[in-house]
Amino acid sequence: MALLLQYDGSRYDGWQRQGNTGNTIQGKLESVLEKMTGRYQEIHGSGRTDAGVHATGQVANVHLDTEMGDGEVRDYLNRYLPEDILVLEAKQVPKRFHSRLLARGKTYTYWVETGQRCPVFQRKYIDVLGQSLDVAAMEEAASSLVGTHDFTSFCTAQGKKKSAVRTLQEIRIVRHSSQLEFVLSGDGFLYNMVRILVGTLVEVGQGKRAAGSVASAMEARNRQEAGYTAPAKGLFLTRVAYDTEIF
Amino acid sequence: MALLLQYDGSRYDGWQRQGNTGNTIQGKLESVLEKMTGRYQEIHGSGRTDAGVHATGQVANVHLDTEMGDGEVRDYLNRYLPEDILVLEAKQVPKRFHSRLLARGKTYTYWVETGQRCPVFQRKYIDVLGQSLDVAAMEEAASSLVGTHDFTSFCTAQGKKKSAVRTLQEIRIVRHSSQLEFVLSGDGFLYNMVRILVGTLVEVGQGKRAAGSVASAMEARNRQEAGYTAPAKGLFLTRVAYDTEIF
Repeated sequence: MALLLQYDGSRYDGWQRQGNTGNTIQGKLESVLEKMTGRYQEIHGSGRTDAGVHATGQVANVHLDTEMGDGEVRDYLNRYLPEDILVLEAKQVPKRFHSRLLARGKTYTYWVETGQRCPVFQRKYIDVLGQSLDVAAMEEAASSLVGTHDFTSFCTAQGKKKSAVRTLQEIRIVRHSSQLEFVLSGDGFLYNMVRILVGTLVEVGQGKRAAGSVASAMEARNRQEAGYTAPAKGLFLTRVAYDTEIF
Repeated sequence: MALLLQYDGSRYDGWQRQGNTGNTIQGKLESVLEKMTGRYQEIHGSGRTDAGVHATGQVANVHLDTEMGDGEVRDYLNRYLPEDILVLEAKQVPKRFHSRLLARGKTYTYWVETGQRCPVFQRKYIDVLGQSLDVAAMEEAASSLVGTHDFTSFCTAQGKKKSAVRTLQEIRIVRHSSQLEFVLSGDGFLYNMVRILVGTLVEVGQGKRAAGSVASAMEARNRQEAGYTAPAKGLFLTRVAYDTEIF
């Protein structure tokens, strides 16, 4: 069964269950699923969102031994989940479906407030910079990030040496009066990659680094050459794409 | 000094201070102002929003003995206020300015989700009805509410017998996919009036009462004839108008 999920990551230690007692999205889902079927089943997310990161379109899969229909599963989960985690849809899918391994692409958005003050209703969902940004310069820098590259400079190393080559299909910057929404789509993202890409673009927008420095940072394959890691709270996983549309 | 305020009413017992220890918007503001000037000064809001009601454009006034500039006052308040209360602007105004007595009109919005599920990021700001509404019927009913009427049927009695005649300039219903935003503007609103107007329109939209019944409910001058009081959390005070524009 595949689940389409929305969650407010503010009060969680991220997606991934940590031991048995972690306050995580995965843990909350698994414990309601266990209550529902009487049996523990691991749930797999398309990716592990970090502590404080939100989702409007996370996809997960789990093998369920149940006679319940899709709508019943969804409603059962929503009845017992906390109100900051919501199952938008549940759907029977072929057993071979795997939300992470089969994901063909993902889209994230990142929200920045350029004004000084933190808007009350977005206080947990936006990073307040308090400084206007040069969008044209950020767009120039973004164009050199789009494409297939080794993104070693734009991720936090995680020990294992795996390929850091990824294809970034798009970085779009949308203005909403004093707020900017960065939309990033790619075939996959490394650990902290979206937050480091946004942090680097923000430094360009602040005039702290030249737009052209971003391409050389990419070539350096050195995290030190890229910008800061933008805070988790501005980040949303908005869409996960598969070859066959699921939701 | 006049203040333009935004607040998330979710965790407060409304605007109005209750004794010395009330967990209220007014109380929070007064205690920061007292810290700033060393002296207690009562702050007056344009109206007393109830527990759980939000504001994006509340206006308040207070007499301050300070040499601080407008921006300094705003920034001082924002530094010490909790993050769910924000001073958008502070402005020196003539001493005779009074946010409530001089208010010429107000606009409220009320948000309703017609879908079954409560959207995670609006969970504190929308009423979930789980049922589609007949917007055309609600618009027909709304047209008989607009104008100058005795709104006794559409308010919660508060003991004192004062005139319940008010002029409602507009009720607009804006669709946002599965959500409806009710926008109500008038010269003034009685206690619970917006919530009862919305509750009555929702009953029309649900087919529980005829659009025509709303005019007769008005004539009856009897609270029993109107609909239910829609919950506080969907309601926002968005604008207070004065003869001379302040903000």
